[in-house]
Amino acid sequence: MKSQKILNDPVYGFITIPSELIFAIIDHPYFQRLRRIRQLGLTDFVYPGALHTRFHHALGAMHLMSITLDNLRLKGTDISDSEYEAALIAILLHDIGHGPFSHALEFSLLEGIPHEELSILTIEALNREFAGQLDLAISIFKNKYPRKFLNQLVSSQLDIDRLDYLQRDCFFTGVSEGTIGADRIIKMMAVHKDQLVIEEKGIYSIENFLSARRLMYWQVYLHKTTVSAEKMLINLITRAKTLARQGLSFQVSEEFDFFLKNPLHLKDFQSNPQILEQFLQLDDFDIWGAIKLWKSHPDYVLKNISRMFLTRNLFKINLVNDPFSPEEIQEQMEKTRQKLAIPSADLDYFFSHGKVSNYGYLASDRINILTKKGKVVDVATAADLPNIKVMSKIVEKYYVCKAKNLILS
Amino acid sequence: MKSQKILNDPVYGFITIPSELIFAIIDHPYFQRLRRIRQLGLTDFVYPGALHTRFHHALGAMHLMSITLDNLRLKGTDISDSEYEAALIAILLHDIGHGPFSHALEFSLLEGIPHEELSILTIEALNREFAGQLDLAISIFKNKYPRKFLNQLVSSQLDIDRLDYLQRDCFFTGVSEGTIGADRIIKMMAVHKDQLVIEEKGIYSIENFLSARRLMYWQVYLHKTTVSAEKMLINLITRAKTLARQGLSFQVSEEFDFFLKNPLHLKDFQSNPQILEQFLQLDDFDIWGAIKLWKSHPDYVLKNISRMFLTRNLFKINLVNDPFSPEEIQEQMEKTRQKLAIPSADLDYFFSHGKVSNYGYLASDRINILTKKGKVVDVATAADLPNIKVMSKIVEKYYVCKAKNLILS
Amino acid sequence: MKSQKILNDPVYGFITIPSELIFAIIDHPYFQRLRRIRQLGLTDFVYPGALHTRFHHALGAMHLMSITLDNLRLKGTDISDSEYEAALIAILLHDIGHGPFSHALEFSLLEGIPHEELSILTIEALNREFAGQLDLAISIFKNKYPRKFLNQLVSSQLDIDRLDYLQRDCFFTGVSEGTIGADRIIKMMAVHKDQLVIEEKGIYSIENFLSARRLMYWQVYLHKTTVSAEKMLINLITRAKTLARQGLSFQVSEEFDFFLKNPLHLKDFQSNPQILEQFLQLDDFDIWGAIKLWKSHPDYVLKNISRMFLTRNLFKINLVNDPFSPEEIQEQMEKTRQKLAIPSADLDYFFSHGKVSNYGYLASDRINILTKKGKVVDVATAADLPNIKVMSKIVEKYYVCKAKNLILS
Amino acid sequence: MKSQKILNDPVYGFITIPSELIFAIIDHPYFQRLRRIRQLGLTDFVYPGALHTRFHHALGAMHLMSITLDNLRLKGTDISDSEYEAALIAILLHDIGHGPFSHALEFSLLEGIPHEELSILTIEALNREFAGQLDLAISIFKNKYPRKFLNQLVSSQLDIDRLDYLQRDCFFTGVSEGTIGADRIIKMMAVHKDQLVIEEKGIYSIENFLSARRLMYWQVYLHKTTVSAEKMLINLITRAKTLARQGLSFQVSEEFDFFLKNPLHLKDFQSNPQILEQFLQLDDFDIWGAIKLWKSHPDYVLKNISRMFLTRNLFKINLVNDPFSPEEIQEQMEKTRQKLAIPSADLDYFFSHGKVSNYGYLASDRINILTKKGKVVDVATAADLPNIKVMSKIVEKYYVCKAKNLILS
Repeated sequence: MKSQKILNDPVYGFITIPSELIFAIIDHPYFQRLRRIRQLGLTDFVYPGALHTRFHHALGAMHLMSITLDNLRLKGTDISDSEYEAALIAILLHDIGHGPFSHALEFSLLEGIPHEELSILTIEALNREFAGQLDLAISIFKNKYPRKFLNQLVSSQLDIDRLDYLQRDCFFTGVSEGTIGADRIIKMMAVHKDQLVIEEKGIYSIENFLSARRLMYWQVYLHKTTVSAEKMLINLITRAKTLARQGLSFQVSEEFDFFLKNPLHLKDFQSNPQILEQFLQLDDFDIWGAIKLWKSHPDYVLKNISRMFLTRNLFKINLVNDPFSPEEIQEQMEKTRQKLAIPSADLDYFFSHGKVSNYGYLASDRINILTKKGKVVDVATAADLPNIKVMSKIVEKYYVCKAKNLILS
Repeated sequence: MKSQKILNDPVYGFITIPSELIFAIIDHPYFQRLRRIRQLGLTDFVYPGALHTRFHHALGAMHLMSITLDNLRLKGTDISDSEYEAALIAILLHDIGHGPFSHALEFSLLEGIPHEELSILTIEALNREFAGQLDLAISIFKNKYPRKFLNQLVSSQLDIDRLDYLQRDCFFTGVSEGTIGADRIIKMMAVHKDQLVIEEKGIYSIENFLSARRLMYWQVYLHKTTVSAEKMLINLITRAKTLARQGLSFQVSEEFDFFLKNPLHLKDFQSNPQILEQFLQLDDFDIWGAIKLWKSHPDYVLKNISRMFLTRNLFKINLVNDPFSPEEIQEQMEKTRQKLAIPSADLDYFFSHGKVSNYGYLASDRINILTKKGKVVDVATAADLPNIKVMSKIVEKYYVCKAKNLILS
Repeated sequence: MKSQKILNDPVYGFITIPSELIFAIIDHPYFQRLRRIRQLGLTDFVYPGALHTRFHHALGAMHLMSITLDNLRLKGTDISDSEYEAALIAILLHDIGHGPFSHALEFSLLEGIPHEELSILTIEALNREFAGQLDLAISIFKNKYPRKFLNQLVSSQLDIDRLDYLQRDCFFTGVSEGTIGADRIIKMMAVHKDQLVIEEKGIYSIENFLSARRLMYWQVYLHKTTVSAEKMLINLITRAKTLARQGLSFQVSEEFDFFLKNPLHLKDFQSNPQILEQFLQLDDFDIWGAIKLWKSHPDYVLKNISRMFLTRNLFKINLVNDPFSPEEIQEQMEKTRQKLAIPSADLDYFFSHGKVSNYGYLASDRINILTKKGKVVDVATAADLPNIKVMSKIVEKYYVCKAKNLILS
Repeated sequence: MKSQKILNDPVYGFITIPSELIFAIIDHPYFQRLRRIRQLGLTDFVYPGALHTRFHHALGAMHLMSITLDNLRLKGTDISDSEYEAALIAILLHDIGHGPFSHALEFSLLEGIPHEELSILTIEALNREFAGQLDLAISIFKNKYPRKFLNQLVSSQLDIDRLDYLQRDCFFTGVSEGTIGADRIIKMMAVHKDQLVIEEKGIYSIENFLSARRLMYWQVYLHKTTVSAEKMLINLITRAKTLARQGLSFQVSEEFDFFLKNPLHLKDFQSNPQILEQFLQLDDFDIWGAIKLWKSHPDYVLKNISRMFLTRNLFKINLVNDPFSPEEIQEQMEKTRQKLAIPSADLDYFFSHGKVSNYGYLASDRINILTKKGKVVDVATAADLPNIKVMSKIVEKYYVCKAKNLILS
């Protein structure tokens, strides 16, 4: 009798790890590191329960993938055991390239390297260690495998990734109205000519899914307090990089120090495997550990922002529907500069403005409905879903945020 | 130490009955009768858990009302203890005039008497028994009380009634994606110039509420199987009435017999209190008890439809987006008549067609948003809610349904 | 692509019906009738949400059985496809012989025929209709199949029946602390020498399961109000039988009438298949339909008890830990007789006394633990579970209950 | 209209912060620091969802306290507004003296200073800042206030602290069978002669609560993997202290460095407020930040244990019911030493043994039941609760744990 590895998940009850290979991948330090990267970065400043990690999300997505594939098999879609395992691995590793506070740091600690690219590099590195056993997973992940539905399950507008993270984020934030009925959506999935489709009777679940996702964006992911905290983090890292590149040394981990000192681009990761290796040592604790140090740092920018994080004295933010005029921004900048009594050159660390945007449905990456008559149509053209077309409009909001006060000495 | 009356509710945990008067109302036979009227009629043919009653819904709505009023008081709205109790009574009794399988039988057992009218008559009857203690509740219920928000909480497009029934129906059907976040909506409610308003930051919850409600309509309330079962019930009662008015006697309860025999209109209820008293003896068990008898009745219409209910051999229904042409209906009728081998005169008992309709937002009964700047605007005009305007479009669907087979002897 | 039949269940999300044969069984009138028999009889007088039916419970148990067998297969236990389907059928039909308000009416409407016997007769009747396809299920159900664990899953102290009903009753009553962690228990199940065992690391789940079950007994199944309502029902049926056997006719369904008139024993069911057929027409609605009629019946016993049900004016009950002395009972009877002003001969209809009992663990039907060292031991001997031995003590409670008041005219 | 401060809690929905003073306390850096201290230390190695913090727990406990006091008021117990607020503050701050990974570090980073003492010192420090507004809360917390039930709600065998943490831990670990029905227990609470009592009808909830708590101990708090991880942490800190006191400097935060270098006793905290101030700068991130640094430290003990944490390569642990003999321990130590090839002097860093213990009910701190006849009795003497007496037996388990392998260079 071989004991099954199982994991507790408050969202689904139990998650079974279905194969030795998958267990070995989960056990790998690259994957274990996801235990130390929160799924929602700084969102716990607004929703204190939102402390769940990318580790749990990846496992949850693997679990849903396995339910989905079982269901498709029951409906008669032929899925081989290797395709099954590869799809599970592909979803398990789809976010493996995320660094700490990913979205925020993609554009500050790194110089704008998409995490998808780093995920691919990391999966390829793992594949070398696992002697090519991840070939098929990589092929699915890169959408080179002929059976397109497998990639669509990993990455599309109705992929398993979203089904898990929406449910999980909703669970841990406590925003119950974000519930999406992933169970029903999965039951409605089918494969038609190797494409992922949704049976027509599931259209209201899709509409509700898109609406719930929209809600989660404005209520959680783009919540003004989260936007403000992320901006603070970006400013903090930017300052540290500036100082590091001026030659200052920090008592941080050597990997973090490396990324502070060196401007790195995707090609550097591609040409030098050591850099990826370094990157895969980083996690949220490097940043938080630094904040704990920097709260007493002589540099007043590092000190102030670090202390703001530790006392939840975040930048005051104003998030509105209409853009601010250049004059208004200018005026607010000037007022802030005077109030904080800082040199103009440092204002950018304590004053930020910009926009956030979101859409409900992305027309270019359509969700396909299989009608009762066997036709495949875009969900946005379904006669009784007037909402969806409207939801494809991109909504933008504009913000200004700034420090409330500083300790200058 | 006075023990509090409490009731278990799987939806909210516990419901406290807050006053002696309210306890006496709940204990009254008119209210206890709601224990025997299901909230969702025949929906359990589709969702087997949907067996909850109007009794539980009324108590749940009272519970939410009490949370809502507590919250409004915390926000500074002055609500006197008598207003508080009256609002609780008004919501508790808002559905007291419902008969068995209400929506279906409003237009078959009764001749189209709206249950709201019967609710008022019943509350007035109770008020006589309770020596005028329900005066204020009646005034709120009839929207004659000057502080309009109290009536709006009882009856409007975002009333406590809906907040409870959507949550409750969602819970007992298991359609989890219908979750509406009633908690958050209640927290966002405020009173502005005696009108109920929603604070601006709650707009996404409202949007999601409307979208969830729409989902529940198509997924549950207007589910094709429910539509079909209700049509069968209407046909069954219509047949029984026809026979009763031809002089046939049934072994049913005397009250049910009375309503089968006599065509009654609202004015009959108003002029003769005995009729209301009779009506308030009816519940689902009268109908089900009759079905159990009629399954062996010599009349083949009663027998067949009753048996269909008991074996879940429901009318086959086709529910589509576009109207059927008169020719198509004619053709289907003829085919059905031939297949079932029945006289044309009886075809209406076994063949029905019609339409169902629903809307997401009713522009005429607007939901008011209180903006951060203190302005009151219709939710449908909020800049970043493109959905809502679209949801005010009425969606209609068309159906044809018919018996699959009959036992003629 | 073959569409899977699925059912919504608020407890588990979705239940899949895994084979054509099982679908046909569920569709059979004998099984559909379980839609009209509540799992918890009159318990909704205490817990208004407890309206769930034996239909839903049977489906839920089938669902858990399927999860259990999948899990055992993963652990290496060989289970053939026919064993799998037979085990599902056995659990699906384990309660098929229950009549309306089963436990109460087993000893009043029937003359003490255990529902297990009627279940066997019913499954055999179904087997004839299904041309022997239920042979293996019957063999498992009757514990004649050599692989004992299959029967143990259907009927033992830790069977799938209990795992479902405890969870389900807990869900619908709202007694959340009755939660048993069925998921974990199932994961801990294993098969050792064809016996069902629990892996040692699961012992705390077993302890908690037994403790939760004990709680559910005292908090729900033997709640004093339920005991009182059941006693009333027994008295009502007893009266109706007495009158029927004196020649009185009721306007009830012919099947109900048949059982009121005729004293029937197990051998009658065995010798005459028509009797079983009649029995399988009965459901809760026959009883409730009769109560609706009897509320106006000239017999004052029928009238009074029926009205008490309809207005929730239940017998007042006193449930205590120590037996009442004969004198005390005598005194209370006399007082009740005088208060109600009824003849002594009728007192038994309005006054009852007796005892209820429960145990936490039944030593004679042990739960087996498989230790890490591969030994099988009784859970009650596990060193660090002092509780369980203690829980095998039978706890008895004693009650007296009586009508509060009567309408005599 | 004054906006209420509310917080999202997936466990309870919403938590309202009921007063300005309480809001100011929550906003204080001492309290905000609890955001960075996990409730369950290293338990997420077993239950990946268990990442919730002392911050959330403290707020949840305050929420339950407020429900409890509302309920007691409804039952007629007079509770003044200042007592109400003070009780909320007392429970809010009951754990404020916890350091990072509290239970583990109480006896390694500190020299065995109970966190309760540090909580008192911290509350007193806050009281000075808040100009004496916490006087009454302190009096309740120290059990000097005459109305004993207020202290019993803060700290006793059935206190609000436990009601929250059991529910919360159960929610975030996903161990659903640990559900305790806090709602019902709170409804059953009453005050009798200024003592907290439970109404008799609540005894089964109490029994279940104790049983669930026992389950949570063995299933979660004393789970062998958690025991092993905590032991590793203690060994890591012990090593760091040893090195620090030999004069080694670490690049950690100055506060952490201070506690590594200086052996401190309660009297030091009492005599020098600066030490408490330093202590209240520490949180989990100091430890995790150090682990990230130490993974590359020249000291092989620090390096190895840090890496084990980062790759979840925990000490292998054997947890059994019977004590190990000295010989067995000796033998295992020797084997471990040889296998790891380390000097004897270092063995203690990589090999540990000891015992853990737990009890279900602590007879010395009884839970009082108020019988229907108005008598107060210990729950353990209630006639039909044979379990509880048995649960007061202390259960001990014994463990040996050791590193699996080392990197020596």
